[in-house]
Amino acid sequence: MTTTPAEQAAMRRALKLAATPGVPLGPNPRVGCVLLDADGAEIAEGFHRGAGTPHAEVAALTEAGEAARGATAVVSLEPCNHTGRTGPCVEALIEAGVRRVVFAQRDPNPVAAGGAEALRAAGVEVEAGVMASVARGVNRAWTFAVEHERPFVTWKFATTLDGRSAAADGTSRWISGTDARRDTHALRAECDVLMVGTGTVLVDDPQLTVRDEVDHPVAHQPLRVVMGEREVPAASRIFEGPGEARHLTTRDPARALAQLHEDGRRHVWLEGGPTLAAAFLRADLVDEVIAYVAPTFLGAGASAVGDLGITTIGDQLRWHLKRAAVIGTGADATVRLTLTPTGDS
Amino acid sequence: MTTTPAEQAAMRRALKLAATPGVPLGPNPRVGCVLLDADGAEIAEGFHRGAGTPHAEVAALTEAGEAARGATAVVSLEPCNHTGRTGPCVEALIEAGVRRVVFAQRDPNPVAAGGAEALRAAGVEVEAGVMASVARGVNRAWTFAVEHERPFVTWKFATTLDGRSAAADGTSRWISGTDARRDTHALRAECDVLMVGTGTVLVDDPQLTVRDEVDHPVAHQPLRVVMGEREVPAASRIFEGPGEARHLTTRDPARALAQLHEDGRRHVWLEGGPTLAAAFLRADLVDEVIAYVAPTFLGAGASAVGDLGITTIGDQLRWHLKRAAVIGTGADATVRLTLTPTGDS
Repeated sequence: MTTTPAEQAAMRRALKLAATPGVPLGPNPRVGCVLLDADGAEIAEGFHRGAGTPHAEVAALTEAGEAARGATAVVSLEPCNHTGRTGPCVEALIEAGVRRVVFAQRDPNPVAAGGAEALRAAGVEVEAGVMASVARGVNRAWTFAVEHERPFVTWKFATTLDGRSAAADGTSRWISGTDARRDTHALRAECDVLMVGTGTVLVDDPQLTVRDEVDHPVAHQPLRVVMGEREVPAASRIFEGPGEARHLTTRDPARALAQLHEDGRRHVWLEGGPTLAAAFLRADLVDEVIAYVAPTFLGAGASAVGDLGITTIGDQLRWHLKRAAVIGTGADATVRLTLTPTGDS
Repeated sequence: MTTTPAEQAAMRRALKLAATPGVPLGPNPRVGCVLLDADGAEIAEGFHRGAGTPHAEVAALTEAGEAARGATAVVSLEPCNHTGRTGPCVEALIEAGVRRVVFAQRDPNPVAAGGAEALRAAGVEVEAGVMASVARGVNRAWTFAVEHERPFVTWKFATTLDGRSAAADGTSRWISGTDARRDTHALRAECDVLMVGTGTVLVDDPQLTVRDEVDHPVAHQPLRVVMGEREVPAASRIFEGPGEARHLTTRDPARALAQLHEDGRRHVWLEGGPTLAAAFLRADLVDEVIAYVAPTFLGAGASAVGDLGITTIGDQLRWHLKRAAVIGTGADATVRLTLTPTGDS
């Protein structure tokens, strides 16, 4: 049994719906769904708009109404089989009389899994794994978080070409150019936690918001977290609006991540400084590195990462260079490197 | 007056001849020459093979013999008008009965310039500046050296992404991968001086040779120079063969460059360490930066560049990012950045 061209086109559409920009990230995966009639024509579509709102399948079924009877549901994720804030999608699909379900990624969440089997048991045809790797990409951090039971961690830093992330007097704004800062905000917006250490709050006092192209804060802000045991002033800018902020009083990255995972956070954007970065690297809790390397030299000042306990060149931490891109043009150009752990494919 | 398609094609050929690989670099520019008959068909060609050998025009005229009478000479550089180790090309062209000369780059060397005027005075048609910027590129370092009366300086370094060019114990081999090392040797081969500081000789004791793909020293080695006032052991590997080596006992980059320029050296490849790099940067005597940034972290160890007297971020030395390239693949991948001074076009 394979899929029809109409189903493949519908899956591409479902994946695009899943990745609809502007959906507030939450503990749930992004999912898109397209309903096709017996001739392969689209009846309805839907996508998940964030925690507490209908799942993609239910959104599409609601739009379709009676037309869903005998239809094929094309979904980017295996329909869930558990009752959370909403009822199980499997039940909704069966009740609506859907004849066939084509889905991409298997649900890695043991609580929600089993959808395919439940559908088959109810006599629904099921085709699994269509464009599954693309679907995993849409929910990269969520998939990782569910599989590893902790949030995915992206460590971001900016550095001069001689490895300085701040000048001797502590100033660090701005090492890289305007375009790199915009790029950073766009990437921050895809995460649900922005994290710094107490040192950064005490020295830089950042607002740590996501800002749009014209430097205004966007509507949906990730949770801002300051991590570390030192006290920070209640008047620190990180605690100002918009959005939520929290101080996690631990120096242990694993403890901090466990806490955030429990709170439904799936993707942590770590913005240093060197002490916090070193703690995460030493604990092997960095899953991706985004480094902005500016074509500049300082000759003195702190590095992006503190002591790692490494003394000789053979022990350097080696990462896989996934991508190198030039951000900005002319005098504003900066190089952005994306690294992944060497074990990853 | 303009050029014919045949002359333009001949100029492309002359530029290619000028850049013939394997020609030992010396104090002279690389030049190619093509002779065309009245119908635009090629009669002969020649290129300069290094100091003491015939200039390109003479090589082509020799090949052409009597056929040169009435011909058009297409040359990548203005024919010289002075007697050096060889006689002036202007005289040779006139004597051979060449009717027309098309050249690319004007000779920036005041001693050799005036060729166009001398040719015109003898009744030869002259077309100047055809593909001149390409021709300047072929003799980039030589042109710079003639115009600035000192060698062009390329500063090369390798660094981890956190800005370490050596580990805490001083080891630095190898920060970047095999492909980056090969790339370095290919770029070294285009220079006529390889320079390090006394510190690098004392700590790393490098051989500082140019090696081929199978790690054998190439036939023609650049001059190896150790610069600085500290004594270095006569048994240092830099003084071993193949090729010539010299200790310049000064800490002043301008003095070292003046000495090398006087000796006919046009392109210095500077390979650190941090003290020497800082001295050249402070003196504003770096014309190009080649940086290999490895996707690795050390957390401790010396930076590529020593103190520059900069204390605050606004004063960082900003360069123009000319190119970013990934060298090597997979686990061996390194990023190579090419920077030029911000004033350059």
